[in-house]
Amino acid sequence: MKARVFVSLKSTVLDPQGQTVCSALHGLGHQGIASVRQGKFFDIAIADGVTREQAQREIETIAHEVLANPVIEEYQVELLD
Amino acid sequence: MKARVFVSLKSTVLDPQGQTVCSALHGLGHQGIASVRQGKFFDIAIADGVTREQAQREIETIAHEVLANPVIEEYQVELLD
Repeated sequence: MKARVFVSLKSTVLDPQGQTVCSALHGLGHQGIASVRQGKFFDIAIADGVTREQAQREIETIAHEVLANPVIEEYQVELLD
Repeated sequence: MKARVFVSLKSTVLDPQGQTVCSALHGLGHQGIASVRQGKFFDIAIADGVTREQAQREIETIAHEVLANPVIEEYQVELLD
């Protein structure tokens, strides 16, 4: 089983990295871009023998406690088969 | 219109950051995790008045030339409404 966890800055938090990418794109002539926000994702392979419910619970815990900083970041968990 | 571009290392390229996350998770007692690979994504807002076809073409160009390094990375473009 596989899971993907998306971690991004909360929309109320400034994203200087995304802003830099956006102004670089404008500088390169891509005027059709209004804004850019950057995030990261983790593709997690889950060991055999773990049930879907266990996996869901474990990945939620990991996302909340390890992968994201809940003060400034939000996360989203997707379980894939 | 919005687009999301996923950039990750090619599967043949070693991902030390993902491996570090994986061993940290094992150290924290999450034995159900087999492997972790990390990537980044860009949420791009496209200016009004750009058609879907123009947007698709522009985002593909940006992904290939700016956001990803095609030598070691692969990318995937998703257009959202």
